[in-house]
Amino acid sequence: MPIDVEKAMSAPLKPIEFEYNFKDVILYALGIGAGVPPTDKDQLGFTYESGLKVLPTYGVVPPFAALAGVMGHPGLDFNPMMLLHGEQFLEIRKTPIPVKGKLVNKPSIQAIYDKGKGALVLLDCLTETADGEALFFNTFSLFLRGEGGFGGESGPKAENEAPDRDPDETIEMKTLPQQALLYRLSGDLNPLHADPNFAAMGGFEKPILHGLCTFGHVGRAVLQAYCANDPGKFKSIKVRFAGSVYPGETIITQMWRENDDTILLKAKVAERGIDVITNAAVKLNV
Amino acid sequence: MPIDVEKAMSAPLKPIEFEYNFKDVILYALGIGAGVPPTDKDQLGFTYESGLKVLPTYGVVPPFAALAGVMGHPGLDFNPMMLLHGEQFLEIRKTPIPVKGKLVNKPSIQAIYDKGKGALVLLDCLTETADGEALFFNTFSLFLRGEGGFGGESGPKAENEAPDRDPDETIEMKTLPQQALLYRLSGDLNPLHADPNFAAMGGFEKPILHGLCTFGHVGRAVLQAYCANDPGKFKSIKVRFAGSVYPGETIITQMWRENDDTILLKAKVAERGIDVITNAAVKLNV
Repeated sequence: MPIDVEKAMSAPLKPIEFEYNFKDVILYALGIGAGVPPTDKDQLGFTYESGLKVLPTYGVVPPFAALAGVMGHPGLDFNPMMLLHGEQFLEIRKTPIPVKGKLVNKPSIQAIYDKGKGALVLLDCLTETADGEALFFNTFSLFLRGEGGFGGESGPKAENEAPDRDPDETIEMKTLPQQALLYRLSGDLNPLHADPNFAAMGGFEKPILHGLCTFGHVGRAVLQAYCANDPGKFKSIKVRFAGSVYPGETIITQMWRENDDTILLKAKVAERGIDVITNAAVKLNV
Repeated sequence: MPIDVEKAMSAPLKPIEFEYNFKDVILYALGIGAGVPPTDKDQLGFTYESGLKVLPTYGVVPPFAALAGVMGHPGLDFNPMMLLHGEQFLEIRKTPIPVKGKLVNKPSIQAIYDKGKGALVLLDCLTETADGEALFFNTFSLFLRGEGGFGGESGPKAENEAPDRDPDETIEMKTLPQQALLYRLSGDLNPLHADPNFAAMGGFEKPILHGLCTFGHVGRAVLQAYCANDPGKFKSIKVRFAGSVYPGETIITQMWRENDDTILLKAKVAERGIDVITNAAVKLNV
């Protein structure tokens, strides 16, 4: 079934409520490798309820369920096994992020591009507090393999290329063999990240780490290198998912200060040398 | 204030409801180190919702909140900072353990002994399913330092001494530096296990692992060595807490087959050579 852009863009997506507390915040932090001294220089800051801070990248968790709304959406008839998470943008619109609350996620389709080999769906989601204040804004870029060629626009080119010089900062984080099993308790229960049979169906030799778990690791690296672990200094992050991490591997985040409020970054897997995050930037509140 | 045995024994304790689902079961399993290949030969058995099995030692989690009922109980006026968890007995009364449910915990005080240096309170707790079927039976042995000398009976002697020969089976499990931070999400939020200031007040150089987290590790060791990771073969476990594990240390469980249905065991910390679990036995369903 071809993509029907007009139909997909005009059909509304339902708001989705989300409730969380400090245990969810801590579980997420442990899921993306926080709480491990000496690498984590603020071990308890994100993992203990007294004085608890919320990691900025937690902002992708509340709207995650909105992704399910794309399955079966009018004009977007596709095979879920062919969906790839291409890019992620997250902006924190209110700080400090509360350690508990009831939130409302308001998803909408921003654009659908024709990439030839596939269709690229940009799903926006505004997450508001119960008082109607904007808290997070996300754009999930979803690549639907095999659904291109419907005659749409090709969309913007890649941005945030890493500079051709040595990084200013480099942080290594070794993941746990059980990292994906832990991360999935924060809401993404896709069996691709646990079950060898599903991993094989997806074309992987074994279960892979969630892209958004890798995303959380690189977010922590920037937070530590440029924000002194103060989430209030972290404004937004955008990344491209270029490759997969196997649980247990080491994520190396390389960072370049581009200017006062912009850090460019990329990440690779130490054990295999492949890039896993590219075309990435963090904006700081300065 | 001295212990008043008659008053304490005659005052009732309230039933406590407990609800859980597969995520709680998996979180507990990860909290006691399951899901780590190759040590865990059944990595997904206890950590993935498809075909999920419940670790027998999960049986201490539902009644845990009943412990709080001992604080302020009539006849038991003591300083909570002086309370030590001395021993634990757990029997699984129904198998398989459901992966979700609503349970009712019915606590009662079995006995109070005068140990000279302290009072020993045996808190029983029967945990039933919503249908009124017995699921778990626990006895928490609570040692109240400084509350002895009230003229009570001294109670039974220690049992389950480890044999004076080489163990039949030995299993090493390395804990994570963040193990206590993860385990506490299963319900025991005592800051002693996270906060260096509380640890210092308790007389420890840094936060210690929960005794029941160590308990979970040794339970897994027996389950693997003698039950082929089949929880249905695991009937009961009794341990004495002899010392503390620091998160990140390695727990070595030594096991002896005493007879067809009894495994004797003890556990020590590899890095410091001290015993942490002694006078311990697991009964098997044969």
